Amino acid sequence: MKVDFWFSENQNEDVKFGVRVKSHLFSKESKYQKIDIFDTEFFGRVMILDGCFMITEKDEFMYQEMLSHPAMVSHHDPKDILIIGGGDGGVAREVLRYPVRAVDLVEIDEEVISAAKTYLPSIAASFADSRLKVYNMDAFEFVDSERSYDVILVDSTDPIGFAASLFSDVFYMKSKKILKKGGIIATQSGSPFMNPEFIKKAYRGLNSHFMTVKPYLSFVPSYPSGMWSYIMASDGSIEKRRDFTGRYVNEGIYLSCFNLPEFVKKVLESQ
Amino acid sequence: MKVDFWFSENQNEDVKFGVRVKSHLFSKESKYQKIDIFDTEFFGRVMILDGCFMITEKDEFMYQEMLSHPAMVSHHDPKDILIIGGGDGGVAREVLRYPVRAVDLVEIDEEVISAAKTYLPSIAASFADSRLKVYNMDAFEFVDSERSYDVILVDSTDPIGFAASLFSDVFYMKSKKILKKGGIIATQSGSPFMNPEFIKKAYRGLNSHFMTVKPYLSFVPSYPSGMWSYIMASDGSIEKRRDFTGRYVNEGIYLSCFNLPEFVKKVLESQ
Repeated sequence: MKVDFWFSENQNEDVKFGVRVKSHLFSKESKYQKIDIFDTEFFGRVMILDGCFMITEKDEFMYQEMLSHPAMVSHHDPKDILIIGGGDGGVAREVLRYPVRAVDLVEIDEEVISAAKTYLPSIAASFADSRLKVYNMDAFEFVDSERSYDVILVDSTDPIGFAASLFSDVFYMKSKKILKKGGIIATQSGSPFMNPEFIKKAYRGLNSHFMTVKPYLSFVPSYPSGMWSYIMASDGSIEKRRDFTGRYVNEGIYLSCFNLPEFVKKVLESQ
Repeated sequence: MKVDFWFSENQNEDVKFGVRVKSHLFSKESKYQKIDIFDTEFFGRVMILDGCFMITEKDEFMYQEMLSHPAMVSHHDPKDILIIGGGDGGVAREVLRYPVRAVDLVEIDEEVISAAKTYLPSIAASFADSRLKVYNMDAFEFVDSERSYDVILVDSTDPIGFAASLFSDVFYMKSKKILKKGGIIATQSGSPFMNPEFIKKAYRGLNSHFMTVKPYLSFVPSYPSGMWSYIMASDGSIEKRRDFTGRYVNEGIYLSCFNLPEFVKKVLESQ
């Protein structure tokens, strides 16, 4: 018998999304946030940070693939990769499917990595790959480094609290400095339906530092509104150079994800 | 001050979606279903049938436009249109933007139309158009008619209860008979993520009666998973012949909506 045991995310003040829970596997207040892992009936295991869905076993592939592969198939030769956030290991898993040389993952909260390793082992399996190096520090500081990268993937929480600096003008300027020639940065930019200010701010910021800026969308059912946005930016061109077919991405998706509904175009054009 | 007053849809046994309510404007048990109208904080006014979101003022344009325009821009000269269901008037509103000759709307439940006229007047404004004729009867019977159509749009509730016949093999056969040469039928087919059996069944049924069958997707935040599917079918070709830009649809959307994520392709290919 299923019991009446639910976790709900308040997607905003007036909308909530609830899932039936089988068991509450883990709960910890880290230095940065509250981390919870639930086993749920429909979405499998889910990781919740400060009350918001980060990962569900059932639909994580949609987000991880769409943050990673459009940049990876567009770069002429992606060898050195920087992942900002991504402590669950999912974006690293996608990136490591390519013949990359090195992946640096900068996750401020080591407790997220530790929880993922214990409770989401298939997603966190990437941490065993010798090409991956983890830095537990603030990415805003890390990007002052002397290193340089072909692709930077910003898999952070939303721009509130400690992650706000990762969507600032200064962060985009610093990121540009550590991108090699032809390098591409891709960032998640929230739901244009629930939170249009977020994508507008990221789009404006990237536009003021990069020649080519391409916003795109995917479905992610467990995220607010199910409509999620990302932005790629580069000082070179961004064109598909190879194919990679996953559980979400394929040739058609690479071609079509940049075609935005009219109201999303209007959000981006508005001041 | 906002009060703790919520309506939640049980999207399935294990997932629910809740919206904060300002007031409960209308509630009636019709001959066919329970009809509720709420005024909500985030989505504006919403119409709920048997506990499920049918229409919200905030995102209805996404569904109405995506059910209507792909067929309307693909037909060589859409003059005579049949709408099955659509008692809120939204699909009729989209179709009447074209120089059509006549629109027949077959809504089994006249109480839905009456509630829409009273509480969703901007959506139901199409009922005042002299080209529109309403039939309150079972569409499954209606399609035995002697009339014939250029475009048939199936805007029904999901295939349970009294609407199940509208996704049956016999219904598709009957529809084909009343389509003129080059005619196009488009139907909603649910969420491939939450309810893959629904789109599979509709796809299989349409494939066994029509030469050209094209499934496509759009975002609809208030529907389960936010990922909604539709299928167009015809014995002729289905290619874009004109443009219409709305709040959701535009040239890019017409080109890209047929590019399905890999897992949706797999759902359709599976037996």
